[in-house]
Amino acid sequence: MIQKYIIRGIIQSALEEDIGMGDITTIAALTGGEVGKAKAFAKVNIVVAGIDVFREVFLFLDEGIQFSGNCEDGRVVKKGGILAEISGNLGSILTAERVALNFFQRMCGIATLTRQYVDEVKGTPAKILDTRKTMPGLRCIDKYAVRIGGGTNHRSGLHDGVLIKDNHIAAAGGISKALARVRGHIPHTLKIEVEVKNLQEVEEALIAGADIIMLDNMTNEDMRKAVAVVNGKVPLEASGNVTLANVRQIAETGVDFISVGALTHSVSASDISLKIE
Amino acid sequence: MIQKYIIRGIIQSALEEDIGMGDITTIAALTGGEVGKAKAFAKVNIVVAGIDVFREVFLFLDEGIQFSGNCEDGRVVKKGGILAEISGNLGSILTAERVALNFFQRMCGIATLTRQYVDEVKGTPAKILDTRKTMPGLRCIDKYAVRIGGGTNHRSGLHDGVLIKDNHIAAAGGISKALARVRGHIPHTLKIEVEVKNLQEVEEALIAGADIIMLDNMTNEDMRKAVAVVNGKVPLEASGNVTLANVRQIAETGVDFISVGALTHSVSASDISLKIE
Amino acid sequence: MIQKYIIRGIIQSALEEDIGMGDITTIAALTGGEVGKAKAFAKVNIVVAGIDVFREVFLFLDEGIQFSGNCEDGRVVKKGGILAEISGNLGSILTAERVALNFFQRMCGIATLTRQYVDEVKGTPAKILDTRKTMPGLRCIDKYAVRIGGGTNHRSGLHDGVLIKDNHIAAAGGISKALARVRGHIPHTLKIEVEVKNLQEVEEALIAGADIIMLDNMTNEDMRKAVAVVNGKVPLEASGNVTLANVRQIAETGVDFISVGALTHSVSASDISLKIE
Amino acid sequence: MIQKYIIRGIIQSALEEDIGMGDITTIAALTGGEVGKAKAFAKVNIVVAGIDVFREVFLFLDEGIQFSGNCEDGRVVKKGGILAEISGNLGSILTAERVALNFFQRMCGIATLTRQYVDEVKGTPAKILDTRKTMPGLRCIDKYAVRIGGGTNHRSGLHDGVLIKDNHIAAAGGISKALARVRGHIPHTLKIEVEVKNLQEVEEALIAGADIIMLDNMTNEDMRKAVAVVNGKVPLEASGNVTLANVRQIAETGVDFISVGALTHSVSASDISLKIE
Amino acid sequence: MIQKYIIRGIIQSALEEDIGMGDITTIAALTGGEVGKAKAFAKVNIVVAGIDVFREVFLFLDEGIQFSGNCEDGRVVKKGGILAEISGNLGSILTAERVALNFFQRMCGIATLTRQYVDEVKGTPAKILDTRKTMPGLRCIDKYAVRIGGGTNHRSGLHDGVLIKDNHIAAAGGISKALARVRGHIPHTLKIEVEVKNLQEVEEALIAGADIIMLDNMTNEDMRKAVAVVNGKVPLEASGNVTLANVRQIAETGVDFISVGALTHSVSASDISLKIE
Amino acid sequence: MIQKYIIRGIIQSALEEDIGMGDITTIAALTGGEVGKAKAFAKVNIVVAGIDVFREVFLFLDEGIQFSGNCEDGRVVKKGGILAEISGNLGSILTAERVALNFFQRMCGIATLTRQYVDEVKGTPAKILDTRKTMPGLRCIDKYAVRIGGGTNHRSGLHDGVLIKDNHIAAAGGISKALARVRGHIPHTLKIEVEVKNLQEVEEALIAGADIIMLDNMTNEDMRKAVAVVNGKVPLEASGNVTLANVRQIAETGVDFISVGALTHSVSASDISLKIE
Repeated sequence: MIQKYIIRGIIQSALEEDIGMGDITTIAALTGGEVGKAKAFAKVNIVVAGIDVFREVFLFLDEGIQFSGNCEDGRVVKKGGILAEISGNLGSILTAERVALNFFQRMCGIATLTRQYVDEVKGTPAKILDTRKTMPGLRCIDKYAVRIGGGTNHRSGLHDGVLIKDNHIAAAGGISKALARVRGHIPHTLKIEVEVKNLQEVEEALIAGADIIMLDNMTNEDMRKAVAVVNGKVPLEASGNVTLANVRQIAETGVDFISVGALTHSVSASDISLKIE
Repeated sequence: MIQKYIIRGIIQSALEEDIGMGDITTIAALTGGEVGKAKAFAKVNIVVAGIDVFREVFLFLDEGIQFSGNCEDGRVVKKGGILAEISGNLGSILTAERVALNFFQRMCGIATLTRQYVDEVKGTPAKILDTRKTMPGLRCIDKYAVRIGGGTNHRSGLHDGVLIKDNHIAAAGGISKALARVRGHIPHTLKIEVEVKNLQEVEEALIAGADIIMLDNMTNEDMRKAVAVVNGKVPLEASGNVTLANVRQIAETGVDFISVGALTHSVSASDISLKIE
Repeated sequence: MIQKYIIRGIIQSALEEDIGMGDITTIAALTGGEVGKAKAFAKVNIVVAGIDVFREVFLFLDEGIQFSGNCEDGRVVKKGGILAEISGNLGSILTAERVALNFFQRMCGIATLTRQYVDEVKGTPAKILDTRKTMPGLRCIDKYAVRIGGGTNHRSGLHDGVLIKDNHIAAAGGISKALARVRGHIPHTLKIEVEVKNLQEVEEALIAGADIIMLDNMTNEDMRKAVAVVNGKVPLEASGNVTLANVRQIAETGVDFISVGALTHSVSASDISLKIE
Repeated sequence: MIQKYIIRGIIQSALEEDIGMGDITTIAALTGGEVGKAKAFAKVNIVVAGIDVFREVFLFLDEGIQFSGNCEDGRVVKKGGILAEISGNLGSILTAERVALNFFQRMCGIATLTRQYVDEVKGTPAKILDTRKTMPGLRCIDKYAVRIGGGTNHRSGLHDGVLIKDNHIAAAGGISKALARVRGHIPHTLKIEVEVKNLQEVEEALIAGADIIMLDNMTNEDMRKAVAVVNGKVPLEASGNVTLANVRQIAETGVDFISVGALTHSVSASDISLKIE
Repeated sequence: MIQKYIIRGIIQSALEEDIGMGDITTIAALTGGEVGKAKAFAKVNIVVAGIDVFREVFLFLDEGIQFSGNCEDGRVVKKGGILAEISGNLGSILTAERVALNFFQRMCGIATLTRQYVDEVKGTPAKILDTRKTMPGLRCIDKYAVRIGGGTNHRSGLHDGVLIKDNHIAAAGGISKALARVRGHIPHTLKIEVEVKNLQEVEEALIAGADIIMLDNMTNEDMRKAVAVVNGKVPLEASGNVTLANVRQIAETGVDFISVGALTHSVSASDISLKIE
Repeated sequence: MIQKYIIRGIIQSALEEDIGMGDITTIAALTGGEVGKAKAFAKVNIVVAGIDVFREVFLFLDEGIQFSGNCEDGRVVKKGGILAEISGNLGSILTAERVALNFFQRMCGIATLTRQYVDEVKGTPAKILDTRKTMPGLRCIDKYAVRIGGGTNHRSGLHDGVLIKDNHIAAAGGISKALARVRGHIPHTLKIEVEVKNLQEVEEALIAGADIIMLDNMTNEDMRKAVAVVNGKVPLEASGNVTLANVRQIAETGVDFISVGALTHSVSASDISLKIE
């Protein structure tokens, strides 16, 4: 369940953006007293994510809306399955519908795609990670949807995880210098991840005491060697150009994590429809 | 060019979301005095959109950043082409990079996809429209990117365009009643669009004085007949399940507009990279 | 009824502006436990507008307040008539009173004035329009009050209606060029209104395909001629120096709309009083 | 001069309210490169107030705008007089014009009306006060304009001035009890004003130690007696139904202050026009 | 009781600052369904202040939380005494605990310290005042806690009280000139306080008509003389380097007010603990 | 250096809180044209922290202010030492002074106190940590000041560090179960800290794979034993009732970290004064 205090603000902004001074069609075409009932159903197979956000959009606009259904986040719903029933003032339902679906379809889209990656690597030790390639303003719900899909969250931003990249290394004068500098400045509760490009850097990072090593755009062959060299001392994360087509092979190199930008930067909205009776 | 007053707020939110109390890696690994130069380049063919947003993210964080390049919105850049050069404080560049790319890659992705649809219908009268299926909080930049890609904006929200849908019609008791109600309540500067499902409704809408008729999920055959019936009296908009594969056939029915939700609800981020020298 | 999501924000700001860190008189003079009952009544004849805003101010401050009365927006209340009864914590009523009245008196003032204009043109085809000359921050309630008074809203801002003025025409190089440029850039759901100054421009605008023509500061004689020339092909809007004294004569020229800036830029607050028993 | 930190926020809100996602007419009709020059001039005699706000609206939208003219707040400008010259990007001037004028016309309207009241009581000891009957969200500029017009500000809100009204007195059990309660709870930097309805209450308030006495809706005759009774021990404020027609007579009763709600609750916008060359 | 509309905003900000995208430990370690009960108790003797703020933090996060206890602001609670019982969803209690205590411990700390100062001067005419040396963003609750501790609030900011300091005097060209200028510009509801440094200035301020005189860093000997000179005509406020050790002696000089910056600029949080059963 | 984007918002809020609609004394007593120069100097020995915040407050109010001095954060300044020189519009300096000092004095107070703790444990392995016991809304500057004083930041909130406390353990059914649950749900970049109360729990936590162990309110004797048991396998953090008087002894037990709530919950503002010449 995603917590209310996190989503109130973005729901309000989204409604203001869409409705502005009013849904002029609905205000004009309806008397205001009509009551209706709508069913949200899946038009494709989906992993449900964001049912709470979906509900809150309707309730934000009109506290009198009734929202029912027992479809929880994480459940797989087949094409045609009912996701929720919404009843109450018809005008409120019509006015809130699009924004509610915009959130929900994205979140289900992320969870569904994540589940595909997770299923693809089943049986290997690899976990699927998200990245910071999320939609501006929507990171919290993007990352929540990844978790619902079975993925694992990487850091939520620059403030809560350390990832020493090539430019940091270059500026500091090498992997061990960069690590030394960073170790002295960060909370002791954070691990230090270092991005490397080849096997030599893997060894340098290991010696310098990296807590996690990210293998950036390395071949599967080299990643396999890295797994052997590191031998379980620290976790390894594969990164770069991961697709559904190649994720299994990457996972089979023995890496611990595979990060996939596409989970959130190239989302296909799940096809969900609201049918008013 | 997208205007500053429109994008300041969302850039600030996006940076706060990503950076929080600070980019701890960069603060720790760098001395703060390093200067650097970065090139943004396309890793695939793209239609550029959002270069102003891309620049403003860096400048928002650090007014001292130099941003150059003559790549304007709307230009096609081939794989490998340079999009911009950014120079100045290295830490600032590293800290702003991801947020700047998150905006820019989405916007280019939208413009590039829109251009594909527009190219696909070239030679027909049809214009490609966007919808309200945009990312919550990002409608202004999503719709801007559609324009840059050669698309035409539909209404920006519920407040500035009238679209009478099936539920409005049902509640009002028919197409003509709905139109009559609406006409009396909206600014005289707005046209009235009516959604119809079959040829009979097309005729009803025409008689009732609709300014625009939206053909919702009708077959190409029926749309062709609708074009004949309407005979140029009002514009026709095709809507529902439009893809790159079928858009040409739809356009050849003779409709005036084709609205495509996927332009903004299922965007693939354009692959753009920042290389620091 | 004005919708809650639209007015919450401005009510909060208004209360913060007035109350700041606290109503020091009420906090000091009362024990906090007093209960009271107040009646709001009209001290002049008014058209009621904003009863929902009036109520929400009290409820925003104190959810326990009881607000009753069957006085709906649009109703005419004679001098001395009761508008609402408010009961509950006396301190809350005293603290909220002024802000609640500031909103309500303005809204009733606008509706009452609008009704006078509307009554004045009764029997003619003319509708009374508002303008963008509203109070900064209060446009939504200003325009709502105009509707309640029987007026018709013009565009709500620069984003949702097209009005090509003399300076746009000059910059584009003439009426037809301006229209051509604009037609290519705006949503197909918007009509295009063109401002003209004389009969020659009326004809140019007509030929160029304007959807609406605004007659700016033209004499009644010329407006009558314009009505004859246009002959119902597009609606005509009269604009400039409209007063209660001359609005009837303008309406009798046959124009379709008359826009009146004074409806919102020069409002006399309706005299309404809260009497605590 | 009104200070920037006070007006930035309301200018931003006003522009967002009017422009939304963009001034579609100006964006479409202009190329974006046009440069222009505009003169703001008075169409009636006015007392200038808010020239800084007027300027800041243009600059907020476009920092490149040039704003000149030596017309300071407080100056009387005759019909036809030039108030300012604005030059720079034509599109920016056109887009900002209405919001800039909405602020400026209200502020000049308030100052001009205030000046009339001030002139009317010239030669008497009375000062003209404003009230809390200001536009929600605009109190700071409303009260500033009153000062510019020669008026004196009453308290700015419930938090920074004490005014014990009839209901406070009733709840506390009499004037002296209310005063005693209040004196113990407020900052020592604030005076205590008590509202009274007749001569007996004037004497009670005086004995109880009120710092200021407000004579609420008393006849001129009674106010004259109150002046005699109080005999300069504390200032007296006349309140209730003050108009330009009766303010002189009230002033001649010898009261120290006369508060006029109409200064801000029923403002006529000063007629000011922007002419683009 | 501190009013809700005042504290909602700062509670929301404080929770967002602490929780961000989620309390990851609690979300992970609990199932979400656990129910718990906690007691807040004093680990030292305290004057309770802010029990409403303490409660609202829990309720803001989770409306289902039950909060009970009859401990009101102003009550003295001995070491070990129970302050409140909180029951409901365990995760919500754990997540809200720290922010709730951060507010409550500061407020009790301020009230407890204020009480010590107030007790110290018991029997003298002196009242203990706070200053503007409060925590940025927390002035309203800081000043509320001072009142609860028995102190008296000085002005709440620069806008609602007049204090002419040495630099104002120097700029204006002397005490009487400064007073004359100020008297003409401020609401008549405000008293004018003047800061003086020696006995000569005391006399000047008195002659010039100051309503209150602040004795800035004067010796007790000189303050005694000032009391004699002023002889009750206006209140005197002692200011500068006041501590618990010297406040009694200052009070015995006969001054009316003693302002103590340390009440809010150097607060020791009261030791309060939440024990979950 | 603390970064601008982090502090802009809290500076604006603090100024609005203090100044409201205007510094009425300064506006009235000065002509507005006065120019002045001020020196900020230390009235006690301090560790400077927040010089950037101090400067930005003045610049936020008036961009024309000149701020000079070479006093950097972290430097020790002796009593009487100059911290900065501020020159420009005298009114702006007077209006901004208090807010600027409120921030700066707190930040220097935190850094100075932290330095005392750090000096106290010199020669031992222990590092001084802060906690989440910071002022609501000021966490970023509180934690920055701790770093400047030589302390080490613990997690910045509930979102970016894992600390399994007794209640989490109880709810999960034991230390190892809690750890197992948490490990599966958090980003791999975060370490897991477990709070324990006695030596038995230390061993449990070690076996269960805790990354860090917090010794909560254990005796120095027990902490020494814990150090021996753990033997460097994971870092140990001492917590609870740490004071300047006992911190050395705690450090000598051999723990790696000592967290001190008082660094931020009970701050004495450093005595700093602004002298205008």
